[in-house]
Amino acid sequence: MSKLPNVGTSIFTVMSKMANEYNAINLSQGFPNFPVDERLTAILAKLTTENVHQYTPMAGFPPLMHQIAKLVQNSYNRTIEPETEILVTAGATQGIFTTILALVKTGDEVIILDPSYDSYESPVLLCNAKPIRVALKDDYTPNWETIEKACSSKTKMIIINNPHNPTGKILTAADFMQLEKLLSKYPEILVLSDEVYEYITFEEKHISAHTQDFLLDRCIMVSSFGKSFHITGWKIGYTVAPEYLMKEIKKVHQFLVFSVNSISQAAISQYLEIVDVNLLGKFYQEKRNYFQKLLQNSRFELKPCEGTYFQVASYANISNEDDVTFCKKLITDHGVAAIPISTFYSDHKDQKLIRFCFAKDDFTLESAAKKLGNI
Amino acid sequence: MSKLPNVGTSIFTVMSKMANEYNAINLSQGFPNFPVDERLTAILAKLTTENVHQYTPMAGFPPLMHQIAKLVQNSYNRTIEPETEILVTAGATQGIFTTILALVKTGDEVIILDPSYDSYESPVLLCNAKPIRVALKDDYTPNWETIEKACSSKTKMIIINNPHNPTGKILTAADFMQLEKLLSKYPEILVLSDEVYEYITFEEKHISAHTQDFLLDRCIMVSSFGKSFHITGWKIGYTVAPEYLMKEIKKVHQFLVFSVNSISQAAISQYLEIVDVNLLGKFYQEKRNYFQKLLQNSRFELKPCEGTYFQVASYANISNEDDVTFCKKLITDHGVAAIPISTFYSDHKDQKLIRFCFAKDDFTLESAAKKLGNI
Ligand SMILES: CSCCC(=O)C(=O)O
Ligand SMILES: CSCCC(=O)C(=O)O
Repeated sequence: MSKLPNVGTSIFTVMSKMANEYNAINLSQGFPNFPVDERLTAILAKLTTENVHQYTPMAGFPPLMHQIAKLVQNSYNRTIEPETEILVTAGATQGIFTTILALVKTGDEVIILDPSYDSYESPVLLCNAKPIRVALKDDYTPNWETIEKACSSKTKMIIINNPHNPTGKILTAADFMQLEKLLSKYPEILVLSDEVYEYITFEEKHISAHTQDFLLDRCIMVSSFGKSFHITGWKIGYTVAPEYLMKEIKKVHQFLVFSVNSISQAAISQYLEIVDVNLLGKFYQEKRNYFQKLLQNSRFELKPCEGTYFQVASYANISNEDDVTFCKKLITDHGVAAIPISTFYSDHKDQKLIRFCFAKDDFTLESAAKKLGNI
Repeated sequence: MSKLPNVGTSIFTVMSKMANEYNAINLSQGFPNFPVDERLTAILAKLTTENVHQYTPMAGFPPLMHQIAKLVQNSYNRTIEPETEILVTAGATQGIFTTILALVKTGDEVIILDPSYDSYESPVLLCNAKPIRVALKDDYTPNWETIEKACSSKTKMIIINNPHNPTGKILTAADFMQLEKLLSKYPEILVLSDEVYEYITFEEKHISAHTQDFLLDRCIMVSSFGKSFHITGWKIGYTVAPEYLMKEIKKVHQFLVFSVNSISQAAISQYLEIVDVNLLGKFYQEKRNYFQKLLQNSRFELKPCEGTYFQVASYANISNEDDVTFCKKLITDHGVAAIPISTFYSDHKDQKLIRFCFAKDDFTLESAAKKLGNI
């Protein structure tokens, strides 16, 4: 009877709730616990008395769309047209859902890498289309050969996530070369590029789908101010796509939500005039380094992390339990919440891996590390 | 190729944009132009420095859900369970879209009254389902006999809108009796009740689907704080449904948007502790009366208006043009924007009728009436 029979309560909801119940340190669901930049909250406070409380235009508040185009120009040296190529969404999640609903049809196939963030599959199923999961290699890089083998005339879209949640892997120039080769054989395939952590990369620079000429006329890029400005609750993101695709995406957006929170859009547009997003990578790199240092003498084995604010860790030295059981005990017995990595696999494969979110103030990271170090 | 081939830019976007371009008085798209209650903006300003900037739980900010349950209790003497029967949405539009996506399947039929607000049909089409339009009677009341004739084993849902946009009509106790009789023959049919103007009724009291025992286990009610608190830009609404339906709606919501603007939710929850929504009907009744009085000597013929903040008017005495042409000229030649009623009909039937929004300060209504009176 259900259209989504296999969907239960999301692991992020389960773990955050359990963390609250047991008063555990919550390194599960990805959100920062430090204060928002005071310049941004001051802008927001000031705007409350201004005329920003009614519908913005459907595709977004024009000054914000202008600032997004400037941001893309400054970050990637790419010129986009605010009126026709940008859509402001209620978070990246809405951008992803709306894009898939607008472009994927009954019988289409959509390639989703495995492991993946959990929000790609359901919208595909709601389109009566078929998600085709293709495993990442053991080092979490895409296996372009098996991806190509999974492609056919039915393939409508490949969904990539760069930087990748949960593994923190980022795509390289070599990855994009292989994607280009693949797409040259399939001129109809679209690429949905989830880049919500685009400004959170460390040693290596993020390569946006924007910077790839071969993708410009077939790629939909989704991003999130929640991630970039530590305001996950505001639910403001944006989608960039060529006009012919954006036209279809806007048709769905119009009836899905019509427009998004006006005052948040106004505040972000003013904040974008003064903020430097390029400081974000360094900020989180220091967090990552600090968290890794705090855990270096623990029995957890930390995996490489090139971007995002997530650290994958193996507990194989500690326990033989499956990762869901281990995460629950981590909360009840040790007071720290994490996310089991099996969640991100279509077959829920247990690999004794869990994910910590390190977007937390130093005191929280220290307190968590102390508990984790004692295990 | 498009999944929504017949969708163009919405008339609300077209008219508001044209109104701006020609500096016309905008009585087209429905939004208030008077300031928001200072108590609400003060709450919002104060909250900016508090810890309300990260994800709320998926279904809504718990204090807001609690306040919504209290509001429903006070308004309709009905007890609902915040945890299981309420969903906070990014505006009523998202509530409607999410409900339809979650519950309507390929091949289902959905009954939509004609004329109707424009956001019901597209989500039905995106479900590969069939919208069945049934004409309202000439006085804009539902024709329950033809509705019943349109019902079959394929009918999944009837969408009602009460008070009704654009006609301002409200459903009576007799309407609900007929609906009950009809539904007794079709135990599977659900009712989606769009009640975004629930607190904007005048001589007659609003009868919510909530107050009808026979609907409790099969009705989804959608409402909007944008309408009730003059904050259409905030995009916060809510949906009430029995748990077994809400479970399915939440599954879609989780991937469609996950959660909605945290700070707006927090502000509305505090505002609900002090505001009296029952003053709203009287406030808009005075606006309606004033606007009608201002136009009484004009050549427009005003239709009855029982609820909403819309006034339908005939211009048959003024012009023979179709209503879209008339509305465009109204902007360019007379400086007032309105909405052509043909927009709300599936066949775009022209009846020389247009819709004015009277949710405007008195000065705006006076200025508009002066221009309209000179035609
Ligand atoms: C929307 S809840 C999940 C937040 C998130 O992006 C994550 O934890 O991976
Ligand atoms: C979402 S734009 C349309 C606003 C409205 O409800 C109306 O004008 O009918």
